[in-house]
Amino acid sequence: MRLTCIAVWTWLFVLEGLFQLASCRSFQSDKCDGSLVKDCESIPPCLPPTVTDTSLRLSALRSLMDSHNISVYVIPATDPHLSEYIGPQDARRAWITGFTGTAGTAVVSKMKATLWTDGRYWIQAERQMDCNWELNKGEPTIIDWILNETREGDIVAADPFVFSIVEWESYKHPLHQGNRQFVVEEKNLVDIIWAGDRPPDPTDDIFKVPDEFFERTWQMKVKEIRAQMKENPYQPTAVLISALDETAWLFNLRGNDIPYNPFFKSYTLLATNFIRLFVNESRLPQHIKEYLNTTCTTDMCVQLKPYTDIRKDLQEYVQGNVKIWIGQEYTNYGVYEVIPESKLLINKYSPVQLTKSVKDSTEQKGLKAAHVRDAVAVIRYFVWLEKSVPKGNVTELSGANYVNKLRSEQKYSKGISFETISASGLNAALAHYSPSHETNRKLTPDEMYLIDSGGQYLDGTTDITRTLHWGTPTDFQKEAYTRVLMGNIDLARSIFPTLTIGDELDVWARHALWEAGLNYMHGTGHGIGSFLSVHEWPVGIGSPHTCPLQEGMFTSIEPGYYQDNEFGIRIEDVSVVVKAETKHTFGGVPYLTFEHISLVPYERKLIDVSIMNKEQIDWLNNYYERIWRTVSPELQAQKLTEEYYWLQKHTQLFSHGVTVTYSFISLAAALLGSFLLQGKIL
Amino acid sequence: MRLTCIAVWTWLFVLEGLFQLASCRSFQSDKCDGSLVKDCESIPPCLPPTVTDTSLRLSALRSLMDSHNISVYVIPATDPHLSEYIGPQDARRAWITGFTGTAGTAVVSKMKATLWTDGRYWIQAERQMDCNWELNKGEPTIIDWILNETREGDIVAADPFVFSIVEWESYKHPLHQGNRQFVVEEKNLVDIIWAGDRPPDPTDDIFKVPDEFFERTWQMKVKEIRAQMKENPYQPTAVLISALDETAWLFNLRGNDIPYNPFFKSYTLLATNFIRLFVNESRLPQHIKEYLNTTCTTDMCVQLKPYTDIRKDLQEYVQGNVKIWIGQEYTNYGVYEVIPESKLLINKYSPVQLTKSVKDSTEQKGLKAAHVRDAVAVIRYFVWLEKSVPKGNVTELSGANYVNKLRSEQKYSKGISFETISASGLNAALAHYSPSHETNRKLTPDEMYLIDSGGQYLDGTTDITRTLHWGTPTDFQKEAYTRVLMGNIDLARSIFPTLTIGDELDVWARHALWEAGLNYMHGTGHGIGSFLSVHEWPVGIGSPHTCPLQEGMFTSIEPGYYQDNEFGIRIEDVSVVVKAETKHTFGGVPYLTFEHISLVPYERKLIDVSIMNKEQIDWLNNYYERIWRTVSPELQAQKLTEEYYWLQKHTQLFSHGVTVTYSFISLAAALLGSFLLQGKIL
Repeated sequence: MRLTCIAVWTWLFVLEGLFQLASCRSFQSDKCDGSLVKDCESIPPCLPPTVTDTSLRLSALRSLMDSHNISVYVIPATDPHLSEYIGPQDARRAWITGFTGTAGTAVVSKMKATLWTDGRYWIQAERQMDCNWELNKGEPTIIDWILNETREGDIVAADPFVFSIVEWESYKHPLHQGNRQFVVEEKNLVDIIWAGDRPPDPTDDIFKVPDEFFERTWQMKVKEIRAQMKENPYQPTAVLISALDETAWLFNLRGNDIPYNPFFKSYTLLATNFIRLFVNESRLPQHIKEYLNTTCTTDMCVQLKPYTDIRKDLQEYVQGNVKIWIGQEYTNYGVYEVIPESKLLINKYSPVQLTKSVKDSTEQKGLKAAHVRDAVAVIRYFVWLEKSVPKGNVTELSGANYVNKLRSEQKYSKGISFETISASGLNAALAHYSPSHETNRKLTPDEMYLIDSGGQYLDGTTDITRTLHWGTPTDFQKEAYTRVLMGNIDLARSIFPTLTIGDELDVWARHALWEAGLNYMHGTGHGIGSFLSVHEWPVGIGSPHTCPLQEGMFTSIEPGYYQDNEFGIRIEDVSVVVKAETKHTFGGVPYLTFEHISLVPYERKLIDVSIMNKEQIDWLNNYYERIWRTVSPELQAQKLTEEYYWLQKHTQLFSHGVTVTYSFISLAAALLGSFLLQGKIL
Repeated sequence: MRLTCIAVWTWLFVLEGLFQLASCRSFQSDKCDGSLVKDCESIPPCLPPTVTDTSLRLSALRSLMDSHNISVYVIPATDPHLSEYIGPQDARRAWITGFTGTAGTAVVSKMKATLWTDGRYWIQAERQMDCNWELNKGEPTIIDWILNETREGDIVAADPFVFSIVEWESYKHPLHQGNRQFVVEEKNLVDIIWAGDRPPDPTDDIFKVPDEFFERTWQMKVKEIRAQMKENPYQPTAVLISALDETAWLFNLRGNDIPYNPFFKSYTLLATNFIRLFVNESRLPQHIKEYLNTTCTTDMCVQLKPYTDIRKDLQEYVQGNVKIWIGQEYTNYGVYEVIPESKLLINKYSPVQLTKSVKDSTEQKGLKAAHVRDAVAVIRYFVWLEKSVPKGNVTELSGANYVNKLRSEQKYSKGISFETISASGLNAALAHYSPSHETNRKLTPDEMYLIDSGGQYLDGTTDITRTLHWGTPTDFQKEAYTRVLMGNIDLARSIFPTLTIGDELDVWARHALWEAGLNYMHGTGHGIGSFLSVHEWPVGIGSPHTCPLQEGMFTSIEPGYYQDNEFGIRIEDVSVVVKAETKHTFGGVPYLTFEHISLVPYERKLIDVSIMNKEQIDWLNNYYERIWRTVSPELQAQKLTEEYYWLQKHTQLFSHGVTVTYSFISLAAALLGSFLLQGKIL
């Protein structure tokens, strides 16, 4: 709005910025070639080749800010659907800073430019950002920084489409408390200066999930959501669906707009009397249009509208006697703010998100089947590593590429579900490290190796982490690994009543570590989709706002331990919530437990059974027996003989420490007894 | 505000209501004498003597509502300090309904009057309320009920001084979403009709905590809070203290305004340049005024202001360039709404509340000492019960009175810290039952007995629950009791890093129950004060919004199990957070654990050690050893010989189930060995 008809003005300012820049010295120094260490103190600054020169971009942005009387402009890393992964045309924060990590917010004032990101990205940010940018490592907070950079009455601005409602409020309230304005800039300022260089919007065809992989047609799902609307005491007249996986799930459709996630950029307005899908129509092949009934006008026909019409369409819709039901977590502030409070029904999550979180029997079957084939890919990788690592020709990157390739060879593969974390030795101490050419490390029998990877398949999404060692681990590495495993097992075998919040169970994954004064600084589990998102909330454990657990929900279980500058351990499995057998059933609700559907054995040489209890060892043996029973036929079917024998060897059962103790005591007692009876002692 | 200058009007309406009522039939029927069952269907209604006739009150209230064009009036149970227990002059909800339970909200429309309260009070509410009132057991919610009872545009009103900010918003938002108005009625409508019958405001002297029981003078505490104000980036100029225990703690002063809690009704405005205490000045003896420096005007003098001036004073204060820091949880909406958003700094809890939650060494010493004397009172009670119950002359009420009396005989006693829960047999299945003449049950060796009680002492506050049996418990009672005890122990011995949220540990108290399909439907622990509140938040476990745990915090640990219509079990101890010894210390923070400071042994005949693990039994034996070492000298000092021997007997150590197994195996092996060696078998 604020930008209407000021295009001429704007370009004058941008040109002025470019001109100012042209007269400046170049920041790139030839002398620095080959160096990976940035030196902003030298004149001219010495910048390694990994750095992006952002001077021009920042200068143009500041000119635009000046023309709007904006003192500070905030640039988050997300897209209008608050997606975890974003398409290249939404990577505004990466373009303006040069830093390509997924998490982090850039804030630009008239004189300064600062990036906030968390510890896992600090090294990468330092390597990628030029001397225009400061990296903030936590203090001051963004708000305090802004308060410092501005005076009372100053304008702080941002694009409301890349803020969640809560994030927007988290800026608005403290800034207003500090007497700063926090205002909506409807047109994104970065987009204006990015302009012609910006990657185009996606044009790929949207496609349908094959019939055998869904149980509920989109019409059934629409009816299910409408029934929930009808039951709601506030009588919503429409649900606004903003999260990309929700629209994908609702229509059983998928796309290729987002890396690792089979989504297409869209909104859905699902009303009691119509269905509107906001998406570029040219992306729908004729058979998909027919599948969606786009030519009719009844309440079971899908009206197609341009993607960019959502705000305008909502503004029109709210003129009527309506009530729009939204989920707070995935609705951006840009669409939220056009809905008057009296016409809004807001819950933490949309009804679609919650309905989707309990998988139906076909989805469960698909997820389990995908994990069997995924286990085959991972086992093939492990067999290959066992042979290749000692030869010294595997690196983190080549390993990642190889496991990605093995997944792509499995039936129904649709690529990987997130960027593979392949981390050797000290690199694995960074919990979310992904290898790059600068950090790439050779895998050796002297170091632990962590591989966290997953695939997208037409029948499900997978995610698994294993930590390996091909040499001789230290006692501490064995203790830490075993305690992480004990945490994984303790959580997996825990029993809890239906509707227990996932967070309540978090301590199970930690207590074996806590008892030894160890811990890990990340959540314990996240939900996972059916050929959808690898991180699918609100199912999860040990992260804020996770939801009450029900039978048929899927979550990862992934405790870890990270020893700075030495090694990293994480053991992650995907697990389904199933009914538990209990002696009583207080409250008449089913008691629940977990069943791992990831099916790859753990690193045998890192397990110290002597610190595990009997229940943990029993659980582990049962799990190994199930892995063998489930995966070995698939290995045979795929004629993978070497892998078959490898699995047989690696799923051998463990004996109890306690058995040894009993045997020892029995033997000692027997000897003592015989002496006693023969009168040798008494 | 809305009521200024309309007193004449108001009284006309009230008189009209009284007149209307005088012409109605009497609801009390002579025929019903002796019956405890209410029959609203009979004409005239048959009402037991426990019922309060509220016709006159409701009629007068509705007349007042009419005069203000109010369709629905909401009456919560709390006071302007959101206190757990309230003074009689604040018991508006009890007066208008007749129902005296602590929890519950009354809502009156033109035609209906409904009370919402939770399950533990349903029986009591039915017994106390007349036929004007409906008891709501959960559905519909208050909001849905109001939406049903009103039309769009209607006015719903309430006194903002008896609402927390969050509660007020929880009405405002959905009512506005439903196009109803939710408005502030500054003068409480119930007070207007209660008028002359309303108990007067308290006039008792306010007194000082003896010097030996506090370490920090009020001046030191003021400086501590001011230092936090100075460090805060939003630069608050004052802290508004609304919770009664916060003002009491700050000034080391106490009063008798609230049952069970040594508080006096007051607010404090602690500014950088002044201190204002809002309290009726006549309640301060001269030496307390001197202690507070009330005659000077520097920043370390306490200015006295009338209690009722708080809102007016705040309105004046916010005219300046100020910022008021408040805690959301204990600030009422009536004072909150006069502070403009730009002059407000709001946190979940006030800095006073958080500072108070970590006890200093004198407070810790006092709490521990109080618990030793409290244990003596409880042990005396148990010895007495053992002798008296079989004679058949102890009831829940007489038992409660006796244990209260025993506490009053202990040094530094200042009464009990909450209404004693003395519950036999099925009455104990109601988790928060307190005995009354109607429900009073005789204690017998055939039933379990639950006693949850505590004391106020000058050096600390206590709270303990034990469940007893003088006859032969069933196997299920033993299993349930042992699993509750296992939960208590598992939580008490858990190890966790500093700043773990109390809620994260909740599962420890439940998992022994969950494993058997059992559970309890209440929180697991609450903070406790130093001669302050028996429920002192935000320290706690398994309730929303509890805070990160630090060394020196105190919490109860109180799992339970309740079998409807049969029995109830709860085992509650107060525990202090202490440093734990761990092999490693990841993150450089101390790892913590609990130490019980309640010192009364558990019910031996309800403990089945065969289902406990070795660690639990070891913990129990250590605890018993500590009870004996700590409490027996006090029993000797008080010359309580019988109790001394009782304690000796009841703190005998338990042997491990596993020891028995080992012994058995050893014996069997010894015999077998001797046979073998003597060639009798082979």
